[in-house]
Amino acid sequence: MKAIVPFKVVNVKSRLASLLTPEERSELAKLMLRDITSTLAAAGVEVELLTTQPFEWDGATVIVSEKELNPALNDYLLANDSPVMIVMADIPLITEKNVRDMLASPADIVICPGRGGGTNVQLIRRPDKYHVDYYGASFMDHMRIAQENGLTTEVFDSFNVSSDIDEAGDLIELYIHGKGDAAKYLRSITVLDDSKGRVRVVKEESNLRAVRIPGKMTG
Amino acid sequence: MKAIVPFKVVNVKSRLASLLTPEERSELAKLMLRDITSTLAAAGVEVELLTTQPFEWDGATVIVSEKELNPALNDYLLANDSPVMIVMADIPLITEKNVRDMLASPADIVICPGRGGGTNVQLIRRPDKYHVDYYGASFMDHMRIAQENGLTTEVFDSFNVSSDIDEAGDLIELYIHGKGDAAKYLRSITVLDDSKGRVRVVKEESNLRAVRIPGKMTG
Repeated sequence: MKAIVPFKVVNVKSRLASLLTPEERSELAKLMLRDITSTLAAAGVEVELLTTQPFEWDGATVIVSEKELNPALNDYLLANDSPVMIVMADIPLITEKNVRDMLASPADIVICPGRGGGTNVQLIRRPDKYHVDYYGASFMDHMRIAQENGLTTEVFDSFNVSSDIDEAGDLIELYIHGKGDAAKYLRSITVLDDSKGRVRVVKEESNLRAVRIPGKMTG
Repeated sequence: MKAIVPFKVVNVKSRLASLLTPEERSELAKLMLRDITSTLAAAGVEVELLTTQPFEWDGATVIVSEKELNPALNDYLLANDSPVMIVMADIPLITEKNVRDMLASPADIVICPGRGGGTNVQLIRRPDKYHVDYYGASFMDHMRIAQENGLTTEVFDSFNVSSDIDEAGDLIELYIHGKGDAAKYLRSITVLDDSKGRVRVVKEESNLRAVRIPGKMTG
């Protein structure tokens, strides 16, 4: 089984910019990718990366396409006769067991929802009879495309796989549940804050700044 | 196996007030509770509700306690010798298979994380050696309490069970993935909106209002 992982090389994870610097976002994105590709490899899956510009990655073939995500992936499906997985690069909680459980499903299309209507992993046994349509409520679109092409589907029910790290509010899942290098890195540069209702991840500096109001310090 | 489901009778689901009227919130909360209690019953689990004031619910014993959530649940654990589940009332995507899979686990504590560090379901085989601590990052607290008491744990990995419907932004999961009466009701009073990046659930009226700017209408 092969998996293709789309990975953005420049201005990585821009929606985390409210909390993390460009260097931190780049480092976190690479560690998430490393956790995910290692997990796929451990489950016996051969990894290919899809990028928009040349990039080196140990243990993976890099496919460069200047096209947008959907046409680039649909080109890839057209060029493949055998089953293939499409795995998003921001789901660092995915485990080897998750991958093996998906591989064990007999469905033509195994689809793992992301939060908010997205699609985080697809296992596509019939790439010749399928195409993808990411963005927006892609989960519904993918279920419809499978149905229109007479393909059987299984919705894979996993908190790990559904937890894509896209916005700052998502980092809490990686901080609390992560076991890989991306989680270790995140925990080294942020702290938990449960002072405002929902628990979230913040920079320690910003907490200190909030406390250190000049002339208001005591003790 | 018994399950206790805490349920708030007054000012229900107040964090959905940005989108739903009090009547709609009350109806949605009751339909979610109905979906959940039916699912538990179908899996052979006996349901008890924990409320702060008298309330009638078909098919469930109602336990009234004026205490806060944690002391009320810990009283309940103290009064029980045999295994018990604690199930939140806002996880309408939970399936009979999810419940049966949890029941099949041999762990002393089976814990299903909610988003943002929360705890959505716990199966507690040793209520005499355990206590709960909800609110904040309760998942970490519960894992710690189990460990301190020498209890084995299993983290139950489920998107369905992790999806608690707490804030308006959570409704998208019920709208897209729900199969029960709560989802049908939600789909009857809201529509999907993917005009602003992440897909969300809105009232159709509010869309129309946004379009109908006086003096700006054409056609």
